[in-house]
Amino acid sequence: MERKIVLSGMRATGRMHLGNYFGAVRNWVELQEQYDCYYFVADWHALTTDYGDPSEIVANSLEVAADGIAAGLDPERSVLFLQSAVPAHAELHLLFSMFTPLGWLERVPTYKDQIKQLTNKELATYGFLGYPVLQAADILIYRGEGVPVGEDQASHLELSREIARRFNSYYGDTFPEPKALFTPAAKVPGLDGRKMSKSYGNTIDIADSPDTIRAKCKSMFTDPQRIRRDDPGHPETCNLFQFHRLLSPPEIQERVARECRLAQIGCVDDKALIADQIIAFLEPMRKKREELMRDRGDLLAILREGSRRASERAEETMEAVRDAMSLNYDRILEADRS
Amino acid sequence: MERKIVLSGMRATGRMHLGNYFGAVRNWVELQEQYDCYYFVADWHALTTDYGDPSEIVANSLEVAADGIAAGLDPERSVLFLQSAVPAHAELHLLFSMFTPLGWLERVPTYKDQIKQLTNKELATYGFLGYPVLQAADILIYRGEGVPVGEDQASHLELSREIARRFNSYYGDTFPEPKALFTPAAKVPGLDGRKMSKSYGNTIDIADSPDTIRAKCKSMFTDPQRIRRDDPGHPETCNLFQFHRLLSPPEIQERVARECRLAQIGCVDDKALIADQIIAFLEPMRKKREELMRDRGDLLAILREGSRRASERAEETMEAVRDAMSLNYDRILEADRS
Repeated sequence: MERKIVLSGMRATGRMHLGNYFGAVRNWVELQEQYDCYYFVADWHALTTDYGDPSEIVANSLEVAADGIAAGLDPERSVLFLQSAVPAHAELHLLFSMFTPLGWLERVPTYKDQIKQLTNKELATYGFLGYPVLQAADILIYRGEGVPVGEDQASHLELSREIARRFNSYYGDTFPEPKALFTPAAKVPGLDGRKMSKSYGNTIDIADSPDTIRAKCKSMFTDPQRIRRDDPGHPETCNLFQFHRLLSPPEIQERVARECRLAQIGCVDDKALIADQIIAFLEPMRKKREELMRDRGDLLAILREGSRRASERAEETMEAVRDAMSLNYDRILEADRS
Repeated sequence: MERKIVLSGMRATGRMHLGNYFGAVRNWVELQEQYDCYYFVADWHALTTDYGDPSEIVANSLEVAADGIAAGLDPERSVLFLQSAVPAHAELHLLFSMFTPLGWLERVPTYKDQIKQLTNKELATYGFLGYPVLQAADILIYRGEGVPVGEDQASHLELSREIARRFNSYYGDTFPEPKALFTPAAKVPGLDGRKMSKSYGNTIDIADSPDTIRAKCKSMFTDPQRIRRDDPGHPETCNLFQFHRLLSPPEIQERVARECRLAQIGCVDDKALIADQIIAFLEPMRKKREELMRDRGDLLAILREGSRRASERAEETMEAVRDAMSLNYDRILEADRS
């Protein structure tokens, strides 16, 4: 039986952090067991916000790819590629743009949210509004059937489904409607207690050295109700304890919870313990990552081989699209000859 | 000295008519003497209005190409090609979209006009709004320096110039600012006296047979102040006489004007005379056209050869664009090696 196609993209705007890993990438690694996975570095998407200074996108793309492979995305089993190396994404995006109502795009909740949030950037651009159209092309060009999504991306996927439906209704059945794979996504707090996010500058990255991790953990925000060392702590709500839940074996979780409630372990010691857990957890990834980054030429070669495989499937889809839309010039000649 | 690049496109929405010829194509033919011309059939652009039923676009594209060649566009001297056969247009369009403010597009006068005029079509789409971005890509991908435009297209070209300027200011000097070539454009009235236009159904087409032309001329709208055969006519304002101005030798123009004012020639006779002039004028084009349409495979081969030549220049430009935008992965490897 043919395996279903799963697709997801990594924005090339910065290194992968624990929030990305536990929120998404860990699931992508697991999905490789059951699906044919297409994972791409979304370097064109990075332009929607970074068009004013794209100088870091290429370097970031290679970093993100190294992060992904180090985290377990396997270029042998899955197709790992660069979005910009498969220009058919741009062609399908253009074709989709023709029948996508502006109203669909204007009502995407993330559009208005992001414009509000990122006030330091000039985002009222044509490309930023059309972000979900490019995303639909990214997915549908591989006839992707499953897309692992976080809750905040469900509306983008809904638009991809609407675009697939509209295409099929105008031009005939061509695309599957991609379904959201709501995989378990752990929320990872940042150093400051807010959601871990590059834009908040509160991340622990896959690439961080042990020293960096120790220093970052020391700065972690802790239980605001525990002011003195001998105040009892509240692990059920404390920011620190969430890291134990993600990373520590049950026996450590139990011991720390107990000792924290009894004020037997202080926040400083707990932070050191958490740093140890994170360092140990990331150690194999960091090593793999270092190895990959030693020669970016080899890394790029891996991505280009993936892009070649991606292009093959993309070109098959584009042929079907041109046929469906009656844009295939060879067909008219066939009709002439018959 | 290198010749400057001139670029223009023909919408693949219908056959070429006298209005297109005298309004634009005649000039394009002349421009071939002085410039390296890139003329393309805008099949993707046709989708902006015809996405609901694109079934005629491919056939129309071949018709329009045959019209253009018959009218004097020379595939040996100029690069005649299909927009959709050079997918880099879509890639550059996507890159331009990233930094094009929505406000620039919303204020293009033709955008609001067309939405008002074509009320039977659902035009509030992402692609229709972005039409001028695709047009900018069409021009700039060949580093086009001159664009023959009608007055109503000047605002589109202005947007291409703004996009070139913005690109150059963000990423460094890459594109020339294309200049409008305001070539003499005769306004051709339609059969009903309004501007000749496919959407009014009032055209005389390059491909029309002599019988069709005679029948169409009979239906021509004439001087509304000349009701009876023996009323004096007003050639200076009469719809019919404008065709003499375009097509008839001076001696016929003088005779008809004189006889019309004296009611010596009636409208019916004058229409027959105009039909003769049009038929004679179009005869060589119609023959060339028939020859080209006899084997659409040969015609398509001409366009594909043109598309190959266009792609070469487009790819050169895209390399320069990727370098300017720091999106060239090879550059980072060169930096690693040096």
